[in-house]
Amino acid sequence: MKPHGPIPPGYAADESGMLLIAGHRADALADTAGDTPLFVYDSAMLAARAGEWRAAMPDAVQLHYAMKANPFAPLLAFMAGVVDGFDVASGGELAAALASGMAAGHISFAGPGKRDRELEAAVSAGATLNLESAGEAERALAIAARLGRTPRLAVRVNPDFDLKGSGMKMGGGAKPFGVDAEAVPALVRRLLDAGADWQGFHIFAGSQALDGAAIAETQTQTVALAARLADEIGATPPLVNLGGGMGVPYFPGDAAVDAKAVGDALAATLEARDAALADSRFAMELGRWLVAEAGVYLTRIVDRKQSHGETFLVTDGGLHHQLAASGNFGTVIRRNYPIALANRFGAEPAETVSVVGCLCTPLDRLGDQVALPRAAVGDLVAIFQAGAYGATASPAAFLGQGPAREMLV
Amino acid sequence: MKPHGPIPPGYAADESGMLLIAGHRADALADTAGDTPLFVYDSAMLAARAGEWRAAMPDAVQLHYAMKANPFAPLLAFMAGVVDGFDVASGGELAAALASGMAAGHISFAGPGKRDRELEAAVSAGATLNLESAGEAERALAIAARLGRTPRLAVRVNPDFDLKGSGMKMGGGAKPFGVDAEAVPALVRRLLDAGADWQGFHIFAGSQALDGAAIAETQTQTVALAARLADEIGATPPLVNLGGGMGVPYFPGDAAVDAKAVGDALAATLEARDAALADSRFAMELGRWLVAEAGVYLTRIVDRKQSHGETFLVTDGGLHHQLAASGNFGTVIRRNYPIALANRFGAEPAETVSVVGCLCTPLDRLGDQVALPRAAVGDLVAIFQAGAYGATASPAAFLGQGPAREMLV
Repeated sequence: MKPHGPIPPGYAADESGMLLIAGHRADALADTAGDTPLFVYDSAMLAARAGEWRAAMPDAVQLHYAMKANPFAPLLAFMAGVVDGFDVASGGELAAALASGMAAGHISFAGPGKRDRELEAAVSAGATLNLESAGEAERALAIAARLGRTPRLAVRVNPDFDLKGSGMKMGGGAKPFGVDAEAVPALVRRLLDAGADWQGFHIFAGSQALDGAAIAETQTQTVALAARLADEIGATPPLVNLGGGMGVPYFPGDAAVDAKAVGDALAATLEARDAALADSRFAMELGRWLVAEAGVYLTRIVDRKQSHGETFLVTDGGLHHQLAASGNFGTVIRRNYPIALANRFGAEPAETVSVVGCLCTPLDRLGDQVALPRAAVGDLVAIFQAGAYGATASPAAFLGQGPAREMLV
Repeated sequence: MKPHGPIPPGYAADESGMLLIAGHRADALADTAGDTPLFVYDSAMLAARAGEWRAAMPDAVQLHYAMKANPFAPLLAFMAGVVDGFDVASGGELAAALASGMAAGHISFAGPGKRDRELEAAVSAGATLNLESAGEAERALAIAARLGRTPRLAVRVNPDFDLKGSGMKMGGGAKPFGVDAEAVPALVRRLLDAGADWQGFHIFAGSQALDGAAIAETQTQTVALAARLADEIGATPPLVNLGGGMGVPYFPGDAAVDAKAVGDALAATLEARDAALADSRFAMELGRWLVAEAGVYLTRIVDRKQSHGETFLVTDGGLHHQLAASGNFGTVIRRNYPIALANRFGAEPAETVSVVGCLCTPLDRLGDQVALPRAAVGDLVAIFQAGAYGATASPAAFLGQGPAREMLV
């Protein structure tokens, strides 16, 4: 038997043992959707999560949603009413963000390979471009001049430090993201000289960290870096985007970030900040932390079989919707995501089984030798932490299975 | 500097140094497609590859195409005229196979999680189901009875051996695929008793192997296993699908499979086969080996930047089309796929660069510290071995970039 990650708080069963999501029975949700596999996102949990963040953080800090984590249109429209801004990573995401109702002035666009047409779309809409290089800056200025627009431009800074313990390091050494810190002052002066509407800095050191002290230390470094750059430039950055970093517990032994501790430390950091940032606004940019726990992936057991003494539950889902849960995206050693039998939720485990997907590849494993209550064909398996980097971060067209259904409840 | 995999044979440049694919300049193909990134598949190379296989293998062995490797509709229609059958892995692939013009009687369907509607589609069409379990067999028989059809049923066998050195092991121990060998005779007798049209065995021990001797040894074991099962059953399997296994060279030091050696060994194995298989037909099921080398992924350089002394070429492509090349699918240690600057193809390397995609994640790397001729914004980068497990095996919707274009020339 191998352990699985912790089931997120807030999920319970009805008296029959059926998992409830936003108060609805999992089997009823599958019926409503018309088929499995299915992603269900709980809007009340999304709102509660944003509320938890606001209660923990200083009032001066804005909350941005990094929509790459989950761009499902109904979820995006809901999040537009819950957060202060969206961060987008492509022209496609920019269009979806604008369609969600988020005002262009609250959208910023980061990404190392922006094409001219994407720069033009952002300048035309009035969204902020987080510039990734001097070359991109010149292209943006030229496009704005041609359009007769004053572009809103921030500079993404490649910091000299990374976020310790983060699953994805975005700083600390040679990176394709942003502009090395020492080159930033000259670039900002160039933007100011060109008459651009300089929006400040975007400094993203890493993501998916669970150690609140490490996140707080990185935020302190980030604020200090922004102050040093502002001093060198001789101008106040209107906004300092502190990046994200707050992760979620996927694996056995993982524990949630202490958001209150991060917020208290950030309040102290901002209280003590350099005069160069006295009039700056601040933002955090969160994707996974805001939406992962509100999502559940439901997949139905199609076959139950034995092979050489092991039991396999074969489902109608798989890595084509849950690439990361299968252990094939950004992880070196496969570990089990939080997993449960939805129709015997909370019941004692009765057997050790491997839960696999329907794809004809040994990579397609959702739960490896996990302890579950006795399961039968037709039962529903739930994978948790499915609200982020699920549907769109997986190869939906692989083996012709097609995308999963999605619903916001 | 880190090495990259070997450029496949058959690619050359015109006098200006531009890569030619099927005789067309890479830049002209991108213009025709209307945009990059772009997959180009060379139909003459596809046909030549199938011809190479037929020249190497005994005449008695049929060539099946495992369409999961590349289901692009024009390519599928072309392959329908080149191979003897298609192997499909879902109802979606079955529909695409039928639409390609391949006759249902030459289509077989394997996959561990077939739903009732998929079984019904196969039985209705007259395709062969490679049964993965006793439970699936009973569902298929019940569906056929309800439809009043005689189902074409083969049994997928989970062999007690695996293919040594294979990238994906599909046998040798507890597996979700097929029926353990010792349970096969009883299941086949059940099918015969039920009046099904028993089609034989599907025995797939592994894929992506480069060692011809290991492939030959596995084929010998496979034929012996089929003979032993046939003896126990007391009936001749009409077809023994020997699986695939023949891989392609992706990485530095990889060398192509010696197809002639595999064919000679297979001829000897079949010559010496047990009388129980005297009247059996045989097939090999190949995906990657047939189509990988005929495909090139073209992506354009959007930015060229320095960070801490390293040079990054940022392209408009990335892991959303080339998940495996980025090192994020089925590999533990990232190594470089074959990569070249398409517009200086064959020129001497002049610098060490990292080629990254446009996605805002450090996972998105197409070439890590590779030696290339000097590259500029607007140049085209070519990734080879892109004909298999590219477009559909990657998360095309990730970060809102959308799918790549594809063309068969």
